[in-house]
Amino acid sequence: MPLSKIYKLYFSPQRKYVKTLRNLLGFVPGNLSLYRMAFRHRSAAVMLKNGTKNSNERLEFLGDAVLGSVIAEELFKRYPYKSEGFLTEMRSKIVSRANLNQLSKRLGLNELIEFDTKIVNYPNKQGSLLGDAFEALIGAVYLDKGYDFTHSFILNRIIKPHVDIHTLENTETNFKSKLIEWCQRHGKDITFELVANNEGDSSKLFTIQVSIDGETYGVGRDYNKKNAEKLAAEKACEALSI
Amino acid sequence: MPLSKIYKLYFSPQRKYVKTLRNLLGFVPGNLSLYRMAFRHRSAAVMLKNGTKNSNERLEFLGDAVLGSVIAEELFKRYPYKSEGFLTEMRSKIVSRANLNQLSKRLGLNELIEFDTKIVNYPNKQGSLLGDAFEALIGAVYLDKGYDFTHSFILNRIIKPHVDIHTLENTETNFKSKLIEWCQRHGKDITFELVANNEGDSSKLFTIQVSIDGETYGVGRDYNKKNAEKLAAEKACEALSI
Repeated sequence: MPLSKIYKLYFSPQRKYVKTLRNLLGFVPGNLSLYRMAFRHRSAAVMLKNGTKNSNERLEFLGDAVLGSVIAEELFKRYPYKSEGFLTEMRSKIVSRANLNQLSKRLGLNELIEFDTKIVNYPNKQGSLLGDAFEALIGAVYLDKGYDFTHSFILNRIIKPHVDIHTLENTETNFKSKLIEWCQRHGKDITFELVANNEGDSSKLFTIQVSIDGETYGVGRDYNKKNAEKLAAEKACEALSI
Repeated sequence: MPLSKIYKLYFSPQRKYVKTLRNLLGFVPGNLSLYRMAFRHRSAAVMLKNGTKNSNERLEFLGDAVLGSVIAEELFKRYPYKSEGFLTEMRSKIVSRANLNQLSKRLGLNELIEFDTKIVNYPNKQGSLLGDAFEALIGAVYLDKGYDFTHSFILNRIIKPHVDIHTLENTETNFKSKLIEWCQRHGKDITFELVANNEGDSSKLFTIQVSIDGETYGVGRDYNKKNAEKLAAEKACEALSI
């Protein structure tokens, strides 16, 4: 083993970071700078010479897409007899901001996230800080180790130990009731309104608009009225980070 | 070579289908039933014994996710100095229903799609039939050949020859003007309305609601007003399959 490698393994100041990541992720990370970036909230980022910020937002964009693809495949294979409507709904539940925030905490990512306490009022108003870092981490793992590795990482290290898919399946979609509860808690008026279909064709497409205190927060369209309501409620939940 | 294989290659009734697919896709497909399913619109599907329909909708769900992931990576790597807002916008342009419908036609998928002419008034009201089949095809390729293969298939067979990313980049987002044009052509009133932020916090989040003939078709939120408008217009374009 070359001396430089021994130095890196035993004496490098990065050793502690590698160890922390290894314990957290279950594998030895390669490109550390990717992981550092994944855990850097925009409030703690600095402008680089090339005009970009070294925050986790680009990695979050990538990770969100990779995560969506892995979860889509897992659901597709796990439920061979279910419709695409069911698959879409299940995926929404798994990758909802609330669920990702929670997963992020369970994995202990909150210990690693860099942010500016003057800007982010953590943990009261953390919003999507945790879930965003979770997605950025997936982006970092993907760039560091490739698709197949990321696929098994997501399944074996995250989904299997932390996501009870069976329970999620039976949680009758709670977007609507979740939204109603939230409005009650915050003293806000909520209305679900069926708006006419102006497209002039004869398709029985329902358009449901959900408004909170008079402001539209989501619109859902489906051939089934209940589903249209669900979709509208889901979008509103997303917009409000509920 | 076993006789059965020779038979399959030279005399099988499926040989013509394999040849058509090979010419179209540039590779020899493995599991033909996946491709047949990818090209079957729900109007031509039949109920199977297990209670599912053999339409392309499940494959479309999967393909949509895989396509999103591949395009996200490509953009991430092609534009190392661009923000995630730019990346998101570029991806929206590439995977817009209009663009996928067009790609589908260019690849010649329209020749292969099975649908019921009594139900689908093709080609006048094809809506998303072509784009849906395109996504389903990506799902089929993924299941048949894996991620890396699908990745190069999308890049080399679709993006490079058919998508001018540079032009798309410079097409200043046309969702708003596209929507306005469409409304003018169809004699509809369109309004972009800034709705108040009722969340009670001091963040400068803009909420723009786009309404057509009094019905809300999209809501966009962003810290930048122009972006919020863009997002709202984009959602409306998607809802109207423009």
